[in-house]
Amino acid sequence: MKTTVQNPDLARFVEAGTLYLGAPEAAELVRRHGVAACIEAIAANIRADFLRWADFDKTARVAAHSDVGVIELMPVADAQRYSFKYVNGHPGNTRLGLSTVMAFGVLADVATGAPLFLSELTLTTALRTAAMSALAAKVLARPDSRVMALIGNGAQSEFQALAFQHLLGITELRVYDVDPAASAKLVGNLQGSGLRVTVCASTAEAVRGADIVTTVTADKRNALILTPEMIQPGMHLNAVGGDCPGKTELHGDILHASKVFVEYEPQSRIEGEIQHQPADFAVTEFWQVLRGERSGRDSADQVTVFDSVGFALEDFSALRFMQQTAEHLGLGERIALVPPLADPKNLFGSLRATAAVAA
Amino acid sequence: MKTTVQNPDLARFVEAGTLYLGAPEAAELVRRHGVAACIEAIAANIRADFLRWADFDKTARVAAHSDVGVIELMPVADAQRYSFKYVNGHPGNTRLGLSTVMAFGVLADVATGAPLFLSELTLTTALRTAAMSALAAKVLARPDSRVMALIGNGAQSEFQALAFQHLLGITELRVYDVDPAASAKLVGNLQGSGLRVTVCASTAEAVRGADIVTTVTADKRNALILTPEMIQPGMHLNAVGGDCPGKTELHGDILHASKVFVEYEPQSRIEGEIQHQPADFAVTEFWQVLRGERSGRDSADQVTVFDSVGFALEDFSALRFMQQTAEHLGLGERIALVPPLADPKNLFGSLRATAAVAA
Repeated sequence: MKTTVQNPDLARFVEAGTLYLGAPEAAELVRRHGVAACIEAIAANIRADFLRWADFDKTARVAAHSDVGVIELMPVADAQRYSFKYVNGHPGNTRLGLSTVMAFGVLADVATGAPLFLSELTLTTALRTAAMSALAAKVLARPDSRVMALIGNGAQSEFQALAFQHLLGITELRVYDVDPAASAKLVGNLQGSGLRVTVCASTAEAVRGADIVTTVTADKRNALILTPEMIQPGMHLNAVGGDCPGKTELHGDILHASKVFVEYEPQSRIEGEIQHQPADFAVTEFWQVLRGERSGRDSADQVTVFDSVGFALEDFSALRFMQQTAEHLGLGERIALVPPLADPKNLFGSLRATAAVAA
Repeated sequence: MKTTVQNPDLARFVEAGTLYLGAPEAAELVRRHGVAACIEAIAANIRADFLRWADFDKTARVAAHSDVGVIELMPVADAQRYSFKYVNGHPGNTRLGLSTVMAFGVLADVATGAPLFLSELTLTTALRTAAMSALAAKVLARPDSRVMALIGNGAQSEFQALAFQHLLGITELRVYDVDPAASAKLVGNLQGSGLRVTVCASTAEAVRGADIVTTVTADKRNALILTPEMIQPGMHLNAVGGDCPGKTELHGDILHASKVFVEYEPQSRIEGEIQHQPADFAVTEFWQVLRGERSGRDSADQVTVFDSVGFALEDFSALRFMQQTAEHLGLGERIALVPPLADPKNLFGSLRATAAVAA
């Protein structure tokens, strides 16, 4: 006897299969909805999901490291939905015409395990990382912050710039990259955005006078992008690029002189800027600040650090937005990622004839 | 400066995207190649991969449990290739017209993280599980085995039957399921196979006189499908259905009176029949027997147990076969799961115009 399916997403899956949103369709979605509006909506989802932190089954991501990069799986689930992201990090990829970071993921139904939604997540990861950064800065940076230094002008930099403009009111960017072509690309892409952008000759020059410093560099090494003498009282540091073992951006003394916030402590101890600090180095999980359980910035002079590595829950929040918006805009297509069986107990029977499989 | 891509699979990915093999196309592949030939080829791949066990970066699968089922991610990698499988287990799914087990997975390039091949793995999991079972029995069962009891006649049963017929020379099946309709379906599907199939009234009746006993039941509980009085000297027990915490099929006394073989010990201690045994309960990893490093069956009278839970490496082996065969038969299509960027450092620029994204 068949039970009626109540969940509308599941009902559509049973009828028509998995909703698939490829990279070109995701780009079309973002163009039609607007980059800033996408980032704002994802930030709202992240906020809502972080506020119910205890509802989620959380785990540090599962990483496979090689000499040249890393491939990671990032699962998370609440009682209704499960998501995972596949994501790589290979700094040498651009030499082959490939992105440093490529990602895709799935949103599934916990009650049945049905993969409801398969989506590209390369573009989506850039959106959600920017949304997370801006959400954290909104809570942790000085409210009068208007100038941001942006160190590392690669694939993620424009998304960070727009997120801080629209969610925080940043009006001026001071940018630097070891590759001048990257900064030139950033300047070109931000024309017409309303942001005042100054290309600087060094990190120190870019950081001078900034209220917020965002580091989003790609080198896989323990780099010292920011050193103590660059840091001024009251700054907020948004450290995005240091996100796996052996890949950091901040001098350790900066962490000791700051209040440090992380997403999910067990993962950040392995992957974040704090990987070089002792196990008892004090950090605050950001959700605790959002819920008012711990304090954020304690004074206008304090230096705050958001030691961001990217957590699975942010992808869960982003996948929810992409699924809903794809449905709303009629983007994507239905695919038979799992077999639509006339009789689910008769997998073998589905091999008998094409008709049975297509049924 | 662009480097030339040497790996032909990667070159095709750079040019045309990820090869996607959906469930209907995988069924077409199996029809055209033949079920038994697919199982034999996958068994050969598993054998080859298990023989170089030390080359793989192995990890127990990452499971998200709920009251009604489980969703798992199963990654594994060698120096060249990375694979993962998404798979659920929800015994109540058939009430909704969905399979108990649904799966898909990816084969990726370790050097770049590129997702080369995305495939359905529901049908493929049934093939690879049967291939693994038969490969283990080929090594562990008595060479003169001709009669197999098959307990649990659901979605995987026909694949087990054909694997044992073609890889071991089983000629007679004695089958039992609590649901007579399942046995009737199995009998119907095996007509014309050349196997002599007897439907029995109980597990005890089916097991009587069998050389090999395969249990592949679906109930998620600590069931006692096989009890000690059913077991005869010299039997080989292929315990497939007990594969997660709280889901077992064998009475503990059977394990104590047998020699027990597992795939990957750290995972089997959590998920296998041995989950109820002390941590020092002796087991042998099957690859050690394949490589001649440990003994398999020690005498014609010994009872051997393959305590199978399904390991990521078997999916890696199966994905290799499906990719190669799909390429060979021209099945599947290329999809843009990750963005094909004209300039990989300019993700944002890809949003500017449809043309740029499609480039």
